[in-house]
This record gives sequence, C-alpha cells and structure tokens, in this order.
Amino acid sequence: MGRIEVTYWIRPEPGDTPDAFARRLAREQTVELPEGGYPVRLDAASVGVVESVTKAGGSEWQAVISYAAALADGVPQLLNLAFGNASLLGAVRLRDIRVPAGLRTIVPGPRFGVGGLRRLIGRDGPILLSAAKPIGLDAQELAARCAALARGGIDLIKDDHGLSDQRSAPFDERVARCVDAVERANRETGARSLFLPNVTAPIDVLGARVERARELGCRAIVVSPFLAGLDTVRWLAQTGDMVVVTHPAFGGATSTTDQGVEPRFRFGALLRLLGADGVIVIGAEGRFPVTQLEVRTVIEGLREPRDGTPASLPILGGGVDVVRAPRWAADYGPDVGLLVGGSLYAQGDLEAAARRLVSAVRAETGGERV
Amino acid sequence: MGRIEVTYWIRPEPGDTPDAFARRLAREQTVELPEGGYPVRLDAASVGVVESVTKAGGSEWQAVISYAAALADGVPQLLNLAFGNASLLGAVRLRDIRVPAGLRTIVPGPRFGVGGLRRLIGRDGPILLSAAKPIGLDAQELAARCAALARGGIDLIKDDHGLSDQRSAPFDERVARCVDAVERANRETGARSLFLPNVTAPIDVLGARVERARELGCRAIVVSPFLAGLDTVRWLAQTGDMVVVTHPAFGGATSTTDQGVEPRFRFGALLRLLGADGVIVIGAEGRFPVTQLEVRTVIEGLREPRDGTPASLPILGGGVDVVRAPRWAADYGPDVGLLVGGSLYAQGDLEAAARRLVSAVRAETGGERV
Repeated sequence: MGRIEVTYWIRPEPGDTPDAFARRLAREQTVELPEGGYPVRLDAASVGVVESVTKAGGSEWQAVISYAAALADGVPQLLNLAFGNASLLGAVRLRDIRVPAGLRTIVPGPRFGVGGLRRLIGRDGPILLSAAKPIGLDAQELAARCAALARGGIDLIKDDHGLSDQRSAPFDERVARCVDAVERANRETGARSLFLPNVTAPIDVLGARVERARELGCRAIVVSPFLAGLDTVRWLAQTGDMVVVTHPAFGGATSTTDQGVEPRFRFGALLRLLGADGVIVIGAEGRFPVTQLEVRTVIEGLREPRDGTPASLPILGGGVDVVRAPRWAADYGPDVGLLVGGSLYAQGDLEAAARRLVSAVRAETGGERV
Repeated sequence: MGRIEVTYWIRPEPGDTPDAFARRLAREQTVELPEGGYPVRLDAASVGVVESVTKAGGSEWQAVISYAAALADGVPQLLNLAFGNASLLGAVRLRDIRVPAGLRTIVPGPRFGVGGLRRLIGRDGPILLSAAKPIGLDAQELAARCAALARGGIDLIKDDHGLSDQRSAPFDERVARCVDAVERANRETGARSLFLPNVTAPIDVLGARVERARELGCRAIVVSPFLAGLDTVRWLAQTGDMVVVTHPAFGGATSTTDQGVEPRFRFGALLRLLGADGVIVIGAEGRFPVTQLEVRTVIEGLREPRDGTPASLPILGGGVDVVRAPRWAADYGPDVGLLVGGSLYAQGDLEAAARRLVSAVRAETGGERV
C-alpha cells in the first residue's frame, strides 16, 4: 500500500540530538509510548520510521518520517497521525504530507481542478470572482447584486462567507433567487457565470444544504473548512458533482516560527489534497498581513506537480482591488482567480464597476470565452 | 434575543487609534465592507457594535464587540462571526465569546457536566483515566488492557486517540470487546468504570460510529474536535445520551503573542460552551511546553461561573505520571480528572501499576465510591 511520508521542521533543544528528537516524534505520533512500553513487533508495524534528518539552517532540522498507510483510515486520522500531538509539542512544524496512491480514497484531490472549472464556465485566462453581500440584506437584494455582477462579466459569484441560513436571507430562498438571477444574466450576456452558495453549516444540516444546492441547479459551492471541519472538503469533493471552492475563515494564527502548519501546506497543498478545486488565498498588500513570498509559496502548493493530483485554482482575495487585479492577473496568471469585493461595492454601480474590472483584467492578460 | 458579546485583544499600529481599529473589526466580521459600501440601515441590524475599548497594557487594548444573535445560526457561523476573518488579520486575539440564553440551542453547554459524570461512575474525588493503547494491537489485546486498567481501579478508560477503524482493531469489534472487558471487571470490583470509544471519524461515518457505540452500551465517548470539527462536540452533546470527553489533538499552535485564540478560551471555555463534559487539558511538567499559569487559566475557563452553564471536568494529561498525579489531584481537585498513560505502561504489570496509582491519589485526596 505504500507509506505516508510526512516532512517536519524540528528544533531540538541544546543537549538533545536531531535523530533522537525525530525518533521520539515518530513514537509520539503512533504508539505514544516510550521505547520498552509496547511490544517490539509494533516497531515495524505501527511506529513511524525516520527516513531522514537533515540540517535546515539555524537550529532547525528537516525530518522526514514515514507511516504505514494502514494507520490512516480517513482525513481526521491522517491529520492526527501527521500532526495530532505534534501540534502541541512546540518546536515542530508540519511542512508536507505525501500519501501513496492507495490512499486516494481518503484524500481524493480535486475532482474538477482548473481544467474542469474552465470547461464549466467556458473561460480562458484569469477567472474573476466576487461575492453577494453584505449579511443583513434579504434574498432579493442579494440576488439583485448577483445579477449586476454577472451582467458585469464576473465568472463566479459566491455567497459572502457569513451567509448561512439566517432569517434575513434563508438558505433555500437565497440560493434559489441567486441562481435564477445569474441564469437570467447569462441568457442576456451569453456567458456561463455560476453562483456558489456557502454550504458551511452545522454538521447535521450540511448534507441537506448540499442536496438543496444541487436540486437548485448549482454547479459549484463554497465552504470554510477551518470552520466546518477539514474533512468536509474531502466529502464534498467525493460525493458531490459540484466544484468545491474553499474560504480561509478561522484558519489564521496556525503557524509561528517554531510550531504549527506551514502556510504553504495549510492554505495550499492540504486543501488541494482534500479536493478543493479552487482555494481562496489571502493576497498581499490588502487588509491581511501576508507577504508576497508567503502568497507565492501557497500558490506553489496548489500548482506544483504532485503525483498526478490535478492543480487547484489559486483565488487571490482579501483586499484585491481594481488597481491590483490586472497586475496580479499578469503576475500569477493565467491559471488564477481574482476575488474582488469591497472595491466594487465602493463604486456604487456594481454592474459598471464589475465591467470596468473585467475590461482592465482582460486588457492586461486576455481571457476570452471559449 | 440578546446579543453575542465577543472580547478581543487588539494591537493597533502606530498612527491608528484603538477605537477606529475596533470599528473596522466590527465591520470586517459582519458586512465586510467599508463604511459607505452598504445600506445605512445595516449599521444597526448587522454591523457589530463596539461596546468598549480599554487599555490592556503595553500596546494592547481590550475591545468588546457585540453582534446581533440573529447573525449566528450554528457553531460554524458563530465562530466565523466572532473570529473568521479576524483570525487572519494579525494583531487580534480572541479572548472570549458570551452568548445570550436564546442561543443555547446552538451552544448547549455540557449535558452531564461534572455532577452527571460522577453520578454515572459513582465516584467522589479526583477521577482517574487511562487509555487502551497502542495503535497496532488487535481488539483482544486492547480489551485485555482495558480489563487490567478497570480491575486496577481506573474510572474512565478511553481509546487511544489514534484508534479509529483500522484493520488492526476495527471499531465495532474493538468497542464490543473493550466494553465487555470493562463490564466484567466491574462485576469483579463492584465499581462502575466506563470505556470511552474514540468517535473521531470522517463526517459521513461519524453518525454510524456514535450509533454503534450507543448500541454496544457505551455511556461516554471521546472525540478530537480540532480534527473532527468543533461543531462535532455540539452535535454529540445535543443528540447523544453519552458523556462527551474531548482530546486536544491537532489543536496546537493556535495562539501567539499577537494573534490566535487564547488558550483559556480555545482549550477551555469554548469546548465547555460547545458541550464537552470532560476536557483533556495538557498539563505542565510533561512532554508539552505549557506553563502552570496556562494550565490554571484553561481550568478556570472550564469551571468559572458562566450564566448557569455547568462546569466541564478538566482532565490533566500529556505526561501525568504516578509521581505527579497525587500532587495535581491535591492541587486541582477534587473536581479534576487525571489521565495517566505511558507511566503505567512502563511498569509492565498494568493492573498493579493502576492500583498503585489509584492508592496514591486516594491517599492524598480521598475519593470514595458513592
């Protein structure tokens, strides 16, 4: 079945050795008992194997530990195996998880990927996204905004990620009206824009929301995995026939210089492995304190060759405006999404603002309907 | 319906004012649009209200922002409202969430609490826990360990948190055998020890695991909410008739000096609000780098008076041994659980080791069967 290969950065205390640290880590993540506290035969069957320990610079070392594939029978246990107790240890950062082909059933990767998404919306070049917002408007008002954005040429129009099933705009009514608004706009423009409902929900109603979205004709959905649970992405990718886009809400503050999950993996490769077709990535220069370098590494995690797993579409958000969008489209494109919200709304006439944005981006980078 | 009150620590940049920062935060978490970008009526209905901003020391300020209860219709959206985008902002830490009585349906608090748990197991004084481990043993071997621990006087014997449904010890067989082993031991000893299966699972099989545990006679379960999703705890508390104990796996690296969720809330009050009857808390002096002060604040979050919400049982783990256990029982008891694993296994004869531990703790603190 092959083995699961996990890469860590470790920082042994003075007096400890990197090899001893890595061996303790391999036990902590599996038998969780010191040597001698478990039957010897488990050393081969269950304990992680330290594959390599190499100096990474400063007081940090890179350790690669492999685990038997049979130890992980689902996303929660895969993440537990890789980083459950380790997340609490300090001095350990998770860099990457590589799974053997035999585990594709539990981490399926994107079902549509960039190519499948493009076929759905019939669009080359950068993909433009915006959100129907804000929370507090009723379903009709939100649908009117969807219509304006679709007529203005936005490809993917998503629920704002705070829209759930509040009385101000209940899920069923909102999704029905927004899907309808975008379809009417498509008939006018000839485009194939899509509306993406937010299916982030309590676990006992998630299934019903997804089913309802499907019945209403949705071909794509958005979910916040750090709120709904990471396995939600896998489940949506595996059981749905809809494009899955993720939002990073509640995902912050998970990595520091000496512990946590590296942004490249947490906001990039991990979501791709789980099955996200599109991943909203916080861009630099906006409202959030991320660097260009961090953005690039996250995008790399979504795109780099990875055992045949399709690439996910990086969708830059978090303060992308009409000035930055064309530049970023050129820098990161053509396989990139640009999520523009507040700066369109600030211009008053949403349809005209969307049209200006679309023209500016297409002028810079192309991207015709295909 | 009342309002949701969220307390943050904020750290405005030089040149910014704490009040302006707090107002931006209140919009970021709700309308997510700058002033002027949304209808004025939403200021009252949807935007968070800055209730107070007070100096906290250094460059930090404490801000209390209230949100209309109607904005949150479930755990994911409550957490999103309180800290979704804010988690990505940097310079903001989440300290606490207070919910009005009208939201008890979405954050129910513990169903059993410490009192209900004591009635189930018939035990005064500190509650002793251990784990059936390690991963890789078969169901019979794990059940034999359960029997030894129960005969030795351990009150709650849980699955190791890495045990899921692996072929080495499939869930159904393992739980059936372990429940049976503990019940047999109870008939010998006259005690009412319980076996707690780990129900952490992919979202589409979680329900079946819980149902199976119930059918097999389990009265308590353990779950890792940072792996399975935080709303899992709420769902288990609300729909189950079993005591819910949480494990902190994958929950680390979530707070730094300038962002994240304060440990007191994340590992304490939050899990209590969601409905955890018992919360495994990483103790100091063990394998994990937490301070006594941090442990005390987490315990405080589980116990302090909180609008009538029952207290959750703090369960100290992560390196509690036979030397520390009696001292901690005295320091933190009597309403405390002590989870002792590795140091019992290291002694070879598990039943005798458990008996010595129980005697040492009872000698220090009492705790008779009632």
